[in-house]
Amino acid sequence: MSISTDLQCPKVVVLGSGNVATALTLAINASGAGKVVQVFSRSIDNARTLAAKVGADAVNVPEDVIGTGDIYLVSLADDAVASTLSRIKPNGALWLHTSGSLDMSVLSGMSERYGVFYPLQTFSKSREVDLSAVTLFTEGSSPSVEEEIASFGKKIFKNIIHADSVTRSRMHVAAVFACNFSNYMWSIAHDLLAKHDIPFDVLAPLLQETLAKALTMPPRDGQTGPARRGDLRIIEAHASSLPPKEQEIYRLLSKCIMDEFYGKQS
Amino acid sequence: MSISTDLQCPKVVVLGSGNVATALTLAINASGAGKVVQVFSRSIDNARTLAAKVGADAVNVPEDVIGTGDIYLVSLADDAVASTLSRIKPNGALWLHTSGSLDMSVLSGMSERYGVFYPLQTFSKSREVDLSAVTLFTEGSSPSVEEEIASFGKKIFKNIIHADSVTRSRMHVAAVFACNFSNYMWSIAHDLLAKHDIPFDVLAPLLQETLAKALTMPPRDGQTGPARRGDLRIIEAHASSLPPKEQEIYRLLSKCIMDEFYGKQS
Repeated sequence: MSISTDLQCPKVVVLGSGNVATALTLAINASGAGKVVQVFSRSIDNARTLAAKVGADAVNVPEDVIGTGDIYLVSLADDAVASTLSRIKPNGALWLHTSGSLDMSVLSGMSERYGVFYPLQTFSKSREVDLSAVTLFTEGSSPSVEEEIASFGKKIFKNIIHADSVTRSRMHVAAVFACNFSNYMWSIAHDLLAKHDIPFDVLAPLLQETLAKALTMPPRDGQTGPARRGDLRIIEAHASSLPPKEQEIYRLLSKCIMDEFYGKQS
Repeated sequence: MSISTDLQCPKVVVLGSGNVATALTLAINASGAGKVVQVFSRSIDNARTLAAKVGADAVNVPEDVIGTGDIYLVSLADDAVASTLSRIKPNGALWLHTSGSLDMSVLSGMSERYGVFYPLQTFSKSREVDLSAVTLFTEGSSPSVEEEIASFGKKIFKNIIHADSVTRSRMHVAAVFACNFSNYMWSIAHDLLAKHDIPFDVLAPLLQETLAKALTMPPRDGQTGPARRGDLRIIEAHASSLPPKEQEIYRLLSKCIMDEFYGKQS
């Protein structure tokens, strides 16, 4: 079977203009995996901003999404996917979503060829990420669609892993703890230091070592700190020095760590 | 003023055999900052294990701590400091503790020369850390003692910052969030993945990028994830899929993140 011209440089329609949509739109064009021809976003300003970066058209009405794309990349907030797609006509194209937690079947009404294209990474618009080191999790509505997705994906990503919806959802929950919640811990630390005019940078060697350690031994074995030592006096002193929200987090996490290392506290 | 022989290679007595005591004992000898001559620990086995690494004596009775050291490094669990020191005779040496949160004054009964020697890092016995990149926070009972501490410290650490007890305690609380609690998030992620036989390594690029981003922009600006997007459906799906403890953490942190970005939820 010869690969058609469309598959060598498919016309891509991107639905969404958030962090993931932005990173993938730029990567698709830069890698030559495809050409993004249209960007849809509920905000026409956001659609235009992203579309302008790759010379694509911008629309903000679902009915205006063109029907002639080869690949449709749905990178909307999970809550918005169903209502947006209900206003777009099905076609024979390859439909993909980029969500860690949505079931593949949300796309089943759009085409017979659909699947998942979930990059395990944190994206922010202002920061470029080297996607070649990122793992892409894929799932396809059939083995041949799965192959098609992998073939598209490998032009952008180095590591591609097939994962069914359950496995992908587990990955996503783990990633929320590992990435989103860790970052939030750093955000709290940043603000605590800022109150005393101490730059967050002073923590850099500590953070780098903490991560390096977690990648060489199970993080549990590298756990340190007052809760790990069961140092109740320090825990109380720290907690009571904090504003209510931070205090609640400090107490809960310290209790959970102590429960793990010393058994349930009464 | 000429520097005495003692100050060029002071005899160091280490009280403690935990992660910090171990890292500093090895670093003191390796750097030539001093010679560790005795290790005290409540557990004689732990004292012997550490002492053997540097050819020092090991004791487990406070009354057996020698009185002829030049520097006493107190690296005990905070809770154990007062009761241990009450059984050791004061002398004219330099007494230092390594705690992030203990006041300097806990040492005031031991000597006129005392202070704080707090390295901002996470230590585990099985892992060697390059201390030259670590920041050491110092505080001394007088300006000349402060100088003496800095002079000793700079043979081991590159960055030395004077910090009073309040500032140091703030640093310590921030470090608990930034290091200990982040590591705990990774520990949870590790276990969630292990249940599905997914290696923690698959998260490495995500974790590295999350940290790299947090060091180039305020972590709040780099916050991503379901709670940042206010994606209540996913938050509920994730939370309800988790065991009770992880569920409580997931719900609390998601709520806190949403409160920050969308205002207090009712």
